[in-house]
Amino acid sequence: MTGWTLPHPMQRALALAEESAAAGEVPVGAVVVHAGAIIAEAHNAPRANLDPTAHAEILAIRRAAEVLGSDRLVDCELWVTLEPCAMCAGAIVHARIGKLYYAASDPKGGAVEHGARVFDQPQCLHHPEVYSGMGEAKAGDLLREFFRGRR
Amino acid sequence: MTGWTLPHPMQRALALAEESAAAGEVPVGAVVVHAGAIIAEAHNAPRANLDPTAHAEILAIRRAAEVLGSDRLVDCELWVTLEPCAMCAGAIVHARIGKLYYAASDPKGGAVEHGARVFDQPQCLHHPEVYSGMGEAKAGDLLREFFRGRR
Repeated sequence: MTGWTLPHPMQRALALAEESAAAGEVPVGAVVVHAGAIIAEAHNAPRANLDPTAHAEILAIRRAAEVLGSDRLVDCELWVTLEPCAMCAGAIVHARIGKLYYAASDPKGGAVEHGARVFDQPQCLHHPEVYSGMGEAKAGDLLREFFRGRR
Repeated sequence: MTGWTLPHPMQRALALAEESAAAGEVPVGAVVVHAGAIIAEAHNAPRANLDPTAHAEILAIRRAAEVLGSDRLVDCELWVTLEPCAMCAGAIVHARIGKLYYAASDPKGGAVEHGARVFDQPQCLHHPEVYSGMGEAKAGDLLREFFRGRR
């Protein structure tokens, strides 16, 4: 039997999440894809950067905007290992990200299918297409292992 | 008759909002106060910075974290001229800002008393004290004037 192969951007996001854990940061990784290629990537870094906004998604979005020379990331995909929080979902709206792919859902901190449900608000100016679940077991294992090691 | 004088941090945030408009950015200004002094300030700059996350609040929070050398801004106040959006409200939570003061409410983009109501979600990890309304007429005038000039 041959297992399904994860799309390359999610494989890369998961590798970044592993780097994040090794660096002592919550293991979340994100990449931005444009025209079929990864143009920006990041893992969580609020502690290393001394920046409470330095979630993987925010850093990847900021780098992608720099690369494309625009504060609008139309035609871009964001691949991330965890359901984005309210801050990151808001940033996805401001950046006009076309498609969002995330691995594990996050009942505690997520704001896509939980809590603030940012994209479902009637005022929400932009609605990315959202796909979730690919790679969720691996993404969830990384998080559980990280927090178990901290207790 | 003597009018009430706006607290200094909000006066400064409004001055920053005026600078924002002069720079062609949506007129919103923010300052972070720690131990009675302004330690960081910013106005909106997504276009100038080519950064969709460069709202006044995010920039001010990032600068304050740099100044204090910590990704937690406990004992800090954030003063901003407009009700924060979901992205900025999320950042306020991550930064553990103690008190939030905002001038104008924003039924279209706000996520404190409108829409995503980030702080009201049961999962929300941190609840700043929130005060609003001081300076709202001036803050609203700046925004209306800016958008009138763009039509």
